[in-house]
Amino acid sequence: MTSKVVTVGEIVVEIMAVRPGNGFREAIDLVGPFPSGAPAIFIDQLARQKHPCAMVSCVGDDDFGWLNIERLRGDGVDVSAIRVHEDAVTGSAFVRYRDNGDRDFVFNIRHSANGHIGLTSEARAVIAEAGHLHVMGSSLVSSAIIEAVLYALDEIKARGGTVSFDPNIRKEMLGFPELREALDRVLAATDLFLPSGAELLLFSAEQDVEKALGDLLGRGLKAIVLKQGSEGARYVAADEDITVAAFKVDEVDPTGAGDCFGATFLAGWLAGLNAADNLRRANAAGALAVTRKGPMEGASTVDQLDAFLADTEQAA
Amino acid sequence: MTSKVVTVGEIVVEIMAVRPGNGFREAIDLVGPFPSGAPAIFIDQLARQKHPCAMVSCVGDDDFGWLNIERLRGDGVDVSAIRVHEDAVTGSAFVRYRDNGDRDFVFNIRHSANGHIGLTSEARAVIAEAGHLHVMGSSLVSSAIIEAVLYALDEIKARGGTVSFDPNIRKEMLGFPELREALDRVLAATDLFLPSGAELLLFSAEQDVEKALGDLLGRGLKAIVLKQGSEGARYVAADEDITVAAFKVDEVDPTGAGDCFGATFLAGWLAGLNAADNLRRANAAGALAVTRKGPMEGASTVDQLDAFLADTEQAA
Repeated sequence: MTSKVVTVGEIVVEIMAVRPGNGFREAIDLVGPFPSGAPAIFIDQLARQKHPCAMVSCVGDDDFGWLNIERLRGDGVDVSAIRVHEDAVTGSAFVRYRDNGDRDFVFNIRHSANGHIGLTSEARAVIAEAGHLHVMGSSLVSSAIIEAVLYALDEIKARGGTVSFDPNIRKEMLGFPELREALDRVLAATDLFLPSGAELLLFSAEQDVEKALGDLLGRGLKAIVLKQGSEGARYVAADEDITVAAFKVDEVDPTGAGDCFGATFLAGWLAGLNAADNLRRANAAGALAVTRKGPMEGASTVDQLDAFLADTEQAA
Repeated sequence: MTSKVVTVGEIVVEIMAVRPGNGFREAIDLVGPFPSGAPAIFIDQLARQKHPCAMVSCVGDDDFGWLNIERLRGDGVDVSAIRVHEDAVTGSAFVRYRDNGDRDFVFNIRHSANGHIGLTSEARAVIAEAGHLHVMGSSLVSSAIIEAVLYALDEIKARGGTVSFDPNIRKEMLGFPELREALDRVLAATDLFLPSGAELLLFSAEQDVEKALGDLLGRGLKAIVLKQGSEGARYVAADEDITVAAFKVDEVDPTGAGDCFGATFLAGWLAGLNAADNLRRANAAGALAVTRKGPMEGASTVDQLDAFLADTEQAA
């Protein structure tokens, strides 16, 4: 069985405000375009772990689209199912940090090329080759994307493959009934669940973390990795419960850190790495990610992770 | 008869590359968002001439849309027919100058809020109050916009109003048959024609400038103003043919200069200013426009134009 990983979701460019402040109602210094989109960052980090992987997405035939395709292809992602749509514009996200760490956004996603993501023949081809599906919950914003994800889910599970699931959602998104239903179907098929902080509680009737973990493992999930940002990460399975502290680094830009963490953990999980070492490695990926400006700029290779881990061991 | 001017067309934000180069395939320093869109720049400059005016357009309910509405409203434009669309994103244009003066763009216009411009009840209301229609040919990119422009044309002409027309198009755009047909209908109703350089020859079977001017005046246009950039401007009517040299200024950003020129000339024309003084005043507006970075940033008030003209007279 191949362990090739496929994911379905949005590709965008990110344009960042250079200085913090409120919104975009006057001309300010900006920097970009940076390749971005949560599933794109995830799959790029996975490719940098030398893990075979593919992405199903759609960009416009413009510099922003080609910038993303070239980055992903260069890092080793199979981009054959990233459609280049002639009559659409690549998605974009303007991001400005406020002084308190909150962010203001101006998004162009739903009416961008991402609105044309769907089950193309190229998508079916990469799904046919895949042994694992990674689902980014925040990507399930259209019926066509949900259709493609659930198709991939059924195909890959039917062949004995596995599924990982990062909700990456805010509570307000759950008002869209089709999304809620799709997330429940994904969770029921999930092997490796990767929620951040309070997301765990969106998926259980239990409103206590320990009880929710027990509830979810009782439903058949193999493992849960709780991403807790600067407080580190916790791996919970039927017979194991390990927390590994985060590395202390100077945070420049947190965007993308959770995606780099998750992809690194998934690569280790698929390779059979033990949970303690895998959490440490994934924490290292998260730490490296926050030290670089730009959502995908902090993605790290195997060698970069090895070097970071060796340095921190020496320092300890 | 009121002389209120109405125009119909796109509103966008412009994001500019700080340094020249080719395209947008890597992260670079940018500055923006600046309010923009050729008809928006035109109507803003007209408002700064204290001339009553309104715009029919559409933006998204986002910072980019409100930035434009606030600028136009602040300068005196009637913005009641600028629709704020809940489910659309304000149009955008990324612009980078090349070393040779050419420009690279990444546009999001057709699938932006501008795709929802049409003949709303608010549009009918401002058209009902208008005595003059300004048509920006480059804005006629959808059937709904063409419908609104031709409706305004018929209404305003039927009341004895006037029409000005700036083609602002490239030859390649004429491949869209509906556009060609609409431009011909607009030209047939035009009183004041404002082509730039070679655009004149797109509207006459004559391929010599003097013959084309004669052909067009013979068809009933009251006056033609040929915009010739740094070579100045020429006014041609049945009984008059005047060329006024451009002012020499240090060019920072030429975007919007033709729109500021045209709006200033239109304000003078509607007020009955003589052609020589009006060309000089419009040239001053064009000169001031190119000295400022940002497409609408170089729009000038009556006082700014008076001061510029007084300074240049003193220097002469």
